[in-house]
Amino acid sequence: MEHSLLQPPKRLLMGPGPSPVEPRVYQALAKPIVGHLDPYFFEVAGDIRRLLQPVFGTANEYTLAISGTGTAGMETAVSNFVEAGMTAAVFSNGYFCERIAEMIRRQGASLKRLAKPWGEAFSDGEARDFIAAEKPHVVAFVHGETSTGVLQNGKAICEAAHQAGALVIADVVTSLGNVPVNVDETGIDIAYSCSQKGLACPPGLAPLTVSPRALEALRARKSSNRSFYLDLTLLNDYLSGRRYHHTAPISMCYALREALSIIEEEGLENRFRRIHTNHRAFVAGIEAMGLSMLVPEALRLRPLNTPCVPAGIDDAKVRQRLLNERGIEILGGFGPLAGKVFRIGIMGAGSTEENVLLLLDALDDALRKEGWRPRADARGAAEAFYGKAAQAAVNG
Amino acid sequence: MEHSLLQPPKRLLMGPGPSPVEPRVYQALAKPIVGHLDPYFFEVAGDIRRLLQPVFGTANEYTLAISGTGTAGMETAVSNFVEAGMTAAVFSNGYFCERIAEMIRRQGASLKRLAKPWGEAFSDGEARDFIAAEKPHVVAFVHGETSTGVLQNGKAICEAAHQAGALVIADVVTSLGNVPVNVDETGIDIAYSCSQKGLACPPGLAPLTVSPRALEALRARKSSNRSFYLDLTLLNDYLSGRRYHHTAPISMCYALREALSIIEEEGLENRFRRIHTNHRAFVAGIEAMGLSMLVPEALRLRPLNTPCVPAGIDDAKVRQRLLNERGIEILGGFGPLAGKVFRIGIMGAGSTEENVLLLLDALDDALRKEGWRPRADARGAAEAFYGKAAQAAVNG
Repeated sequence: MEHSLLQPPKRLLMGPGPSPVEPRVYQALAKPIVGHLDPYFFEVAGDIRRLLQPVFGTANEYTLAISGTGTAGMETAVSNFVEAGMTAAVFSNGYFCERIAEMIRRQGASLKRLAKPWGEAFSDGEARDFIAAEKPHVVAFVHGETSTGVLQNGKAICEAAHQAGALVIADVVTSLGNVPVNVDETGIDIAYSCSQKGLACPPGLAPLTVSPRALEALRARKSSNRSFYLDLTLLNDYLSGRRYHHTAPISMCYALREALSIIEEEGLENRFRRIHTNHRAFVAGIEAMGLSMLVPEALRLRPLNTPCVPAGIDDAKVRQRLLNERGIEILGGFGPLAGKVFRIGIMGAGSTEENVLLLLDALDDALRKEGWRPRADARGAAEAFYGKAAQAAVNG
Repeated sequence: MEHSLLQPPKRLLMGPGPSPVEPRVYQALAKPIVGHLDPYFFEVAGDIRRLLQPVFGTANEYTLAISGTGTAGMETAVSNFVEAGMTAAVFSNGYFCERIAEMIRRQGASLKRLAKPWGEAFSDGEARDFIAAEKPHVVAFVHGETSTGVLQNGKAICEAAHQAGALVIADVVTSLGNVPVNVDETGIDIAYSCSQKGLACPPGLAPLTVSPRALEALRARKSSNRSFYLDLTLLNDYLSGRRYHHTAPISMCYALREALSIIEEEGLENRFRRIHTNHRAFVAGIEAMGLSMLVPEALRLRPLNTPCVPAGIDDAKVRQRLLNERGIEILGGFGPLAGKVFRIGIMGAGSTEENVLLLLDALDDALRKEGWRPRADARGAAEAFYGKAAQAAVNG
């Protein structure tokens, strides 16, 4: 049979993730593997731990990459810290909050949900009242909701949870490496993410961090985790070199280490500033076109932009044009936001002035072809923003 | 902070896995990623399905790669097909059988074990009697036991299980791509493996196949799978393009597709013959040295060789020499076989005449340095075997 060479099309990844990967990361991915018990592998695992800590904003010794995607990270958090007989409270304002709720149900725990429409966030008062009323053992919230583009501040949630003696699980899948996560300062006990968004590595690993307080709770568990693969006690023994557990995905670990080195070289503050600037430029362009953003400015998750689809426009057709005519991937909304928003990632290594301008041009063009008339020049507005931003930087 | 370049040491991987990876597979790994909902990704997933089927020896439509390592494959099999209230029977003659048993316990099912010493296999009669006595809902066995080097024939197990109305789970982690697995012919309902042994791809994916009969049982489950990440119903919806479930590890899927293409090009029969020949040459060398194989010839798992450590020799010192002086990884035994056997993989792309001779030389040298005197020339014996094998091929 004829062998057809693997020739993936060239894509500019500006959806909710995966995000663009730098050549250095691909080079690391293709380095020769060593065994999963090789001293060099444990060096790499140690590097990943050291490099992840500042990105999470934590001193947690228990910081590692789970051998699965972001969803495996979520399941690791839930399956290790929620068990039957517990009450777990979820702040639910988007798809991934609901996914946490579903995982809690599957663990057989009692689930309490505080629900809000997709696109909104919870106030400090709402957080306090809910937790005080439900007295849960575990509280979960999504820091950066990939389905809506909302950033949920976790401070009040963590304070109220700790007062109630509860642990806090935070989903930082879309925030990690894109905006400050501040695990320790916020008081998050367990945070998990993925490799392919803010960290700009291909998908396949789930960075996770666990506080000493959560580890105590883990030791006090009544039943064993239903999952052997994601059992944090066994995983820690393996990554500390004490006991075999599974064969770690060596190549992916190489890539993650390289992606984290790039972040360290850029500097977290520089990275967050870059992503913030490009987010603002994009919004300037979007609003100049006459589109509105779903999420109010103060609640926006900078790396994940959700402009509303103009009335009368089929978002799928616009996305198809972007993909087929320009090789640009963006995604649409789903659930209650299906057909109502675009989901546009300007994150990780993909957050550049060049990409913002390219995308605004492409969006302008696709919308016109679908019969919608942008109000003003989006690219011009973004360029003007960049000019001002550069000037502000010069003026210091 | 100084960036230290990722420079993994060069290793010849001749342990139980990961096994050596060909340059083409690394090249595929480093190709630019597309999104997890990109039409191209679904093409790749379709290719993986098509290329896996003959390697598994199955026509099962439900054939895919789980986004985790071999252990995730095992957990997928157990968590989807074993639930509380069921009886599950395990044939236990090694570490990975015991791991399946542990996963069954964690699912809350009733576990029945038939145990034998590590290094032995189960006879047809033993298989039939055990299953007839226990009347389980699910039967699990390990086709290729990585901890012992034993190949367990599954024919009688499957026949007895089906007579009892039970499903059969087979661990083909070390056998897939190295020896015939024959899922359909044997009657296996669920088989799982890993990417990094017989398939010669880096670790990170778990190929899995499910029979139509098992899918019916899945639909009839009483409780939902505790695992959302490994829920086969959700996974099937995703890989069929019907519904988002998780962000597949795109790069790893590229690599697996390439590794499977290489297998298709070589031809399964050629591949199995190559691995058989190199196994026999290695055994000829080992026996010429004066070492004995743990497993009787008829039960040997060809890709995973377990020669006994000579009396008075510390196997860890021999392995250290191989790693430090030659860059060759082999592993030792563990559990009841700790210190008693070497575990030597001659599998996948690593099964070559060159590697067999290199390893015999290195082993001869390391054993001598540890004070043991090989009886005769191992390399010479292997070379003689190859001469004979070549002659036999010429004589046809």
